[in-house]
Amino acid sequence: MNNPDFKHGVIEMAHGSGGRTSATLIESLFVRHFDNPLLQQGNDQAAFAVTSGRMVITTDAHVVSPLFFPGGDIGSLSVHGTINDVAMAGAQPLYLSAAFILEEGFPLAELERIVISMARASRETGIPVVTGDTKVVERGKGDGVFITTTGIGVIPDGIHISGHLARPGDAIILSGYIGDHGTAILSSREGLEFGTTITSDSAALHTLVAAMIEVAPDIRCLRDPTRGGLATTLNELARQSGVGMHIEEAAIPLRAEVRGACELLGLDPLYMANEGKLVCIVPQQSAGRLLARMHHHPLARQAAIIGHVTSDERNLVVMQTGFGGMRVVDWLAGEQLPRIC
Amino acid sequence: MNNPDFKHGVIEMAHGSGGRTSATLIESLFVRHFDNPLLQQGNDQAAFAVTSGRMVITTDAHVVSPLFFPGGDIGSLSVHGTINDVAMAGAQPLYLSAAFILEEGFPLAELERIVISMARASRETGIPVVTGDTKVVERGKGDGVFITTTGIGVIPDGIHISGHLARPGDAIILSGYIGDHGTAILSSREGLEFGTTITSDSAALHTLVAAMIEVAPDIRCLRDPTRGGLATTLNELARQSGVGMHIEEAAIPLRAEVRGACELLGLDPLYMANEGKLVCIVPQQSAGRLLARMHHHPLARQAAIIGHVTSDERNLVVMQTGFGGMRVVDWLAGEQLPRIC
Repeated sequence: MNNPDFKHGVIEMAHGSGGRTSATLIESLFVRHFDNPLLQQGNDQAAFAVTSGRMVITTDAHVVSPLFFPGGDIGSLSVHGTINDVAMAGAQPLYLSAAFILEEGFPLAELERIVISMARASRETGIPVVTGDTKVVERGKGDGVFITTTGIGVIPDGIHISGHLARPGDAIILSGYIGDHGTAILSSREGLEFGTTITSDSAALHTLVAAMIEVAPDIRCLRDPTRGGLATTLNELARQSGVGMHIEEAAIPLRAEVRGACELLGLDPLYMANEGKLVCIVPQQSAGRLLARMHHHPLARQAAIIGHVTSDERNLVVMQTGFGGMRVVDWLAGEQLPRIC
Repeated sequence: MNNPDFKHGVIEMAHGSGGRTSATLIESLFVRHFDNPLLQQGNDQAAFAVTSGRMVITTDAHVVSPLFFPGGDIGSLSVHGTINDVAMAGAQPLYLSAAFILEEGFPLAELERIVISMARASRETGIPVVTGDTKVVERGKGDGVFITTTGIGVIPDGIHISGHLARPGDAIILSGYIGDHGTAILSSREGLEFGTTITSDSAALHTLVAAMIEVAPDIRCLRDPTRGGLATTLNELARQSGVGMHIEEAAIPLRAEVRGACELLGLDPLYMANEGKLVCIVPQQSAGRLLARMHHHPLARQAAIIGHVTSDERNLVVMQTGFGGMRVVDWLAGEQLPRIC
């Protein structure tokens, strides 16, 4: 079988046929770069051993546009995003699967660049892509490449983290600057420049989470504020737990460049997507110890306590603004930025 | 939050925002129909208990066109297809995840019809959809709906089934009629009629596999001949195991209507996709007992031994034709039918 021409070739319908052309693409691209024994078995599924305990499964479809942006691309994002959803249960990620929907005519050179980036993210995080699928749709029926990744992981004994466990009085911790990913995507999409380049915060948070649960096994909730931003994530948790939240604007880490870009564009950073941040809800007595540990991790140097959980039947998220007033922070309404992840 | 208008509404970009509109769609559609405690937890991942042993993970992107076809739709297909890939490792499927990529403007009524069909397939098979994701792309950047399902399952102790285990002398069993799914899709796509309606064989094969491994725990390979058809699946297994295969055309179950349709269209049924059939490779001494058991299962009444594994360094699949001649059955080359699953 001849290998595809990764320099000048494009995706053809035959790459999705399931026949010889598909097999060649899979071997010369996916198996080659994702390089691991489970994938090399060449079955339609990957088999692995587990010990008894609690596991998690999570899935994310990635349709980000543009495919390449400052600080990442759809490949690295699809690895980080799904690892993070596994980690937000306090779990240690084990394996990823990846399903590609490719548009006829998409350059193979770009696809290879994406797969190489994905493979690098997979190697750096230590979480292999062990099974996958590739489909091709006609020109005009897709948009280059969509990647759906699914992750599974193992929850350590004694850890019970879920969005419904927040209790009045708990501290709310945010792991760092908000809005970087959304602003990076928007500026690269619109060709905007803000003096300096704002880069996506796309990163895998599983080692941060592992460090956090080591010092604070009583963490109640973890969630990454992606689409819908910090505001929507807090509202989700408030509703799920049947509580309210009180946060302080001045405590929320925000880069000057992101603040400036959002002001210019009339956007609220509270609703901007993040891809390398987490919100943590933890009993007050553990908050100080946890925060100190987080500051030692490279992905949470700016971690801060941004507020606390309240008793509120209406499940409102209320923010003390920088001017000293109070503002209700609602769910994202409508669509702020489409195809952000 | 107001529920979407499932009668006259369409998908809007805001349904993929991650904000309030997304949450409403997820609750009134997915959580409502997929109705199970894990999904209702409302986390970005589903947690569950496992006992120690071997597990499998598999993923499939579904882009079938048209979305509705005789014998099924993209919803039921996305459940059956992934259950089957889990079952082909001899595993008992446990859970499914589902990621939807929706096109702006897609009618909510059609989406609900698909989700209801998916939920029915999930209930009938006993395999719940426990986590998911929804993204929306602009009009003209997708094609209605794409569904990526991922499945996990548990392999019973003592079962070792993989595509690399076929040995010369083994029997090759096919579970029933070939070509039904491909022919059904093609005829509905082209608006063709062949006297009677040919319906897709889309079905979940996990109970058949469970019955099979009970009487023949020494099964070596199982694979479902989907895209690329029986011919491509046999070639995959021959290459993976480093063997050849000898099959007999007269032994391959084929409906007269499918044969007729293929002749009319100049297509070879050996390359037509199936969505409810399996190929099984098993030591000769177990073949008779296994076949007898298969005949008692509603999904394998027409099961037949279609040939045997040979020793062949070139890994050729050779067929004795109905006319008595010999023909090399190659991999599918190019694309026979795009977007068949």
